[in-house]
Amino acid sequence: MAEAEALNILGLRQALLAIERGECTALDIIEACFDRIEAREPEVGAWQLRLSREAYLQQYRQQQAAYEASPLKGLPVGIKDIIDTAAMPTEMGSSIHTGRQPVDDASCVAMLHDAGAITLGKTVTTEFAYFKPGKTANPRDLTRTPGGSSSGSAAAVADGMVPIALGSQTAASVIRPAAYCGAVGFVASRGELSLRGVQPLAQSLDSLGLFARRVEDIQLLHALLLRQAQPLSFEAEIKPRRIALCPGQRIGESSAEMNDALNQLAERLQAAGVDCVQVAEDGLLEQMVEHHQRIMAYEVARNLAYESRFPDQLSEPLSQLIDSGLGLEHRHYLDSLLAAQSGCEQLWSQLGEVDAILAPAAPSVAPLGQGKTGAPHMSRPWQAMGLPVITVPGMQDDAGLPLGVQLIGRARNDALLLQQALWLESLIAAR
Amino acid sequence: MAEAEALNILGLRQALLAIERGECTALDIIEACFDRIEAREPEVGAWQLRLSREAYLQQYRQQQAAYEASPLKGLPVGIKDIIDTAAMPTEMGSSIHTGRQPVDDASCVAMLHDAGAITLGKTVTTEFAYFKPGKTANPRDLTRTPGGSSSGSAAAVADGMVPIALGSQTAASVIRPAAYCGAVGFVASRGELSLRGVQPLAQSLDSLGLFARRVEDIQLLHALLLRQAQPLSFEAEIKPRRIALCPGQRIGESSAEMNDALNQLAERLQAAGVDCVQVAEDGLLEQMVEHHQRIMAYEVARNLAYESRFPDQLSEPLSQLIDSGLGLEHRHYLDSLLAAQSGCEQLWSQLGEVDAILAPAAPSVAPLGQGKTGAPHMSRPWQAMGLPVITVPGMQDDAGLPLGVQLIGRARNDALLLQQALWLESLIAAR
Repeated sequence: MAEAEALNILGLRQALLAIERGECTALDIIEACFDRIEAREPEVGAWQLRLSREAYLQQYRQQQAAYEASPLKGLPVGIKDIIDTAAMPTEMGSSIHTGRQPVDDASCVAMLHDAGAITLGKTVTTEFAYFKPGKTANPRDLTRTPGGSSSGSAAAVADGMVPIALGSQTAASVIRPAAYCGAVGFVASRGELSLRGVQPLAQSLDSLGLFARRVEDIQLLHALLLRQAQPLSFEAEIKPRRIALCPGQRIGESSAEMNDALNQLAERLQAAGVDCVQVAEDGLLEQMVEHHQRIMAYEVARNLAYESRFPDQLSEPLSQLIDSGLGLEHRHYLDSLLAAQSGCEQLWSQLGEVDAILAPAAPSVAPLGQGKTGAPHMSRPWQAMGLPVITVPGMQDDAGLPLGVQLIGRARNDALLLQQALWLESLIAAR
Repeated sequence: MAEAEALNILGLRQALLAIERGECTALDIIEACFDRIEAREPEVGAWQLRLSREAYLQQYRQQQAAYEASPLKGLPVGIKDIIDTAAMPTEMGSSIHTGRQPVDDASCVAMLHDAGAITLGKTVTTEFAYFKPGKTANPRDLTRTPGGSSSGSAAAVADGMVPIALGSQTAASVIRPAAYCGAVGFVASRGELSLRGVQPLAQSLDSLGLFARRVEDIQLLHALLLRQAQPLSFEAEIKPRRIALCPGQRIGESSAEMNDALNQLAERLQAAGVDCVQVAEDGLLEQMVEHHQRIMAYEVARNLAYESRFPDQLSEPLSQLIDSGLGLEHRHYLDSLLAAQSGCEQLWSQLGEVDAILAPAAPSVAPLGQGKTGAPHMSRPWQAMGLPVITVPGMQDDAGLPLGVQLIGRARNDALLLQQALWLESLIAAR
C-alpha cells in the first residue's frame, strides 16, 4: 500500500490504480492533498480561491456513489483563474473583476466534472494572463518566481497539492512555469481543445494548457477533453527516430547551465539511438519572437476593449501592450500572421523527417525574486506557429533547481507528441 | 429634413449625417425605431428580449451629453442572443439557459457601447446558432423563414427596427438570413474580430457577423470593432477588375430564379467593364461542403459538453450533430481541416488575378414555412476556408422577394472586400 504521507504526490493514474487495487481510497488522497495545502499554502500562495476541506468532503459525500463509479473518482483539480467556473468567481488576476462570478463552467471544466473530478479551487494567474505576477512563490525555492501566467496551477501541481490543473498559454504561460516549478506542462495545438469559457487574450495564439506530474496523466486529460470513448486506455510510449535540437541561442538569451543541460540530453538521446540534427542558424526563430509579440499586442488591444475603460486598474506593462497594439497598422499585423504561417512551413520543410524539436523550456532556472515571471521568448516561436508543446521536467542545475526542456510536435499531432514525451520522460528519469 | 415616418429606415451613416446637419435628433430616430417595433414586432418576432421605450429613453437621458458627443449618438443596436450582455440575459435559443445572465458584455458589445450605441435588445437566434428556429418570421413575407441562425438580427435590420445588429456565423448564419430578409450581412475573416464573450460553436469556423442596410454602415462597424483611430473616415468604393462567378450548382442545389439572377448580374458586371471568369467545375466546392460539416460536428460535440448533460432539452438535429461529432475519428476531422486549407489555396491559385468571387448567398428566395431555416450549403465552403463574405441585397424575383448574392474576398482582406461591395451595391441599385 502507498504510504499515507506520500499519497498527495501520486500521479493521477497512479492514484486511480491505487484506488482500484484497494491500496487506498479517493478520500485518503483528497485528505492528503488538503494536508499538503494546509502545510504549504501560506508560503506557496498557489490558490486565488479554494474549497475548504469540509466543503470538498461534503460535495464528495453528497454524490459519493457517482464519484466512485466515475473515471476520476472525485479527485481534485485546480483551475487557472482565467477559466470560468460557475461555482467560484473568476477574477483574471485583475481588480477590475474582483468577485466576478461567471454563470457557466468553461467546457473544459464541465468535461472534467463529467469525468468525476472536483474543482478544489482557482489557481493564481498573472493579470489577464499577461505579465503582472500574483502572490505565488516557486515551491522549489520560495525566493524565486514560479513563472507565469499559469503560476498557481504549476506551483500547486509541482508541490503536490493537486495531481492535475488547467492553464492557458498565449506566450509562455504554461511551458515556462512548468519548467521553473518542475511539473509537466502541455500546450495543445491551436484549435485542438475547446476554449469555450476560457477568457481570450489573443485568438491567434491562445491555447489550453494542462499540468500534471507525469506525462501519462496529460494523456488521460487530453483524451477526456476530446470526449474520447475510452479515455483510460493506455497510449504506449514511442521512441522518436530523429530529433531536431534547438539550442536556446537560436531563439534568444539562454544561460550556460541551460545550454549544458540541453547538450547533455542530446548525448543521452544519441546514446539511446536517436538521430539528432540541429535547427538551422538562419534567424528564423528570432524573427518569430518578433512576429508573436506583434500579433499578441494587436489582438490583446481588441479583446480587452472593456478593460481599457479602467486605465488606473491596469498594470504598466499591460497598458503599454494595449497602446502598442492600438498603434499597430493592420497590414503589419497581417504581415506577422502570414510570416508565422510561412515560418512554420519553412521550419518543418528544412527539418525533413524529424519527429519533434527539443529546446529549452525557459532561458534558465527560475530567476530570483517575484516581481517578474521570467522571460517568455523560448515559447513565442512555437506559440506563433500554433504547435503542440510539452515541458518535460527532470533535469536540474547543481543546486537542484529544475531546468525544464520542451518537446515541440507538428501541428495537430498532439497525441503522437505525448507518446514521444512519455519516452523522453523515461530517458530523463533513467540517469 | 428627412420625413418623420422614414427616420427608422435611414442607414446608420445617413442617420448620423442627418443628426449632424440638424435635420433630426437622435431621439427622433430612436422614437421612430420604437414606433416600428411596436407596429411590427407582434408579427415579425425579431426580439428575444428588449428594452421598453421608457427604459431606453431613461438610459439615453441619464448620459445624454456623453451620447451627443459620441460617434454613434445613442442610436440602437440589436445583439444576437448568442452574444453575452451584462444587462440582459443571453439564452442561446435553448431552454437549458433560460434566464442565463452573463456577468460581462462581449468585447464587441463593449466596443459598440464605448462608441455610443445602446443595446436595444437581444435578437432571436436558433438553438445554439444551429438549426432549430425561434419565433422570427421573414419581414418581407411573414409566411416564410427569415433564415438562421441570426434570424432576429437580420429581420430587425431588414424591417427598419434598428439600423445595425450583431450576429455570428459558423455555417450560413449571417449570409443566408441577410439574403432571405434583404439586408446587408457581413462575415469577417476567421480570427479578424474579437469573439470574446460570443458563445463558441466550432472554433475553426466561428466568425463575427454584422448586419446593416447599407454597406457603408458595415464599414463603420468594422472600423469600430478594430478600434481604429478614425472609424468615421470614409473608405471609397473600389471597382473590381476581375470577378470569378460561382454558379450555385458548383456548390449544390440552386433554384432557376437564383441562377437567372446571377447570370443577369454577370451581364451587368461585364457591361460595367468588369472581367468575369468562372470558378472551375472540378467538384472542389462540393467537397468543401462535406469537410465543413465534418469539422462542425466534431467541434460542436466538444464545445457543447455541458449541454450534453440535458439530452431532453436538445433538439433532434442538434443531438444528431453531437452524436455524429462524437463518432468521428480524430484523423478524419484532421483530414477535413487540412482539406479546407489546401482547398482554399487551390481555389485562389486557379483563379489567379481575381479580386473577389460572386455566388448566390442562398439557393433561392426564402422558403415557405417556419419549421426550418433553409439550406446552408452556399456558405459552407467559404466558412470552412475562413474567408470574409458579404451578402449584397437588391436583386429580387418576380414576386419581389429578395434574392441575395454574396461577394467573397481573400482571407484577412476584409476592408478591401467592403470597398468592392460598396461598388457592387451601387451597381445593383442602379438598374
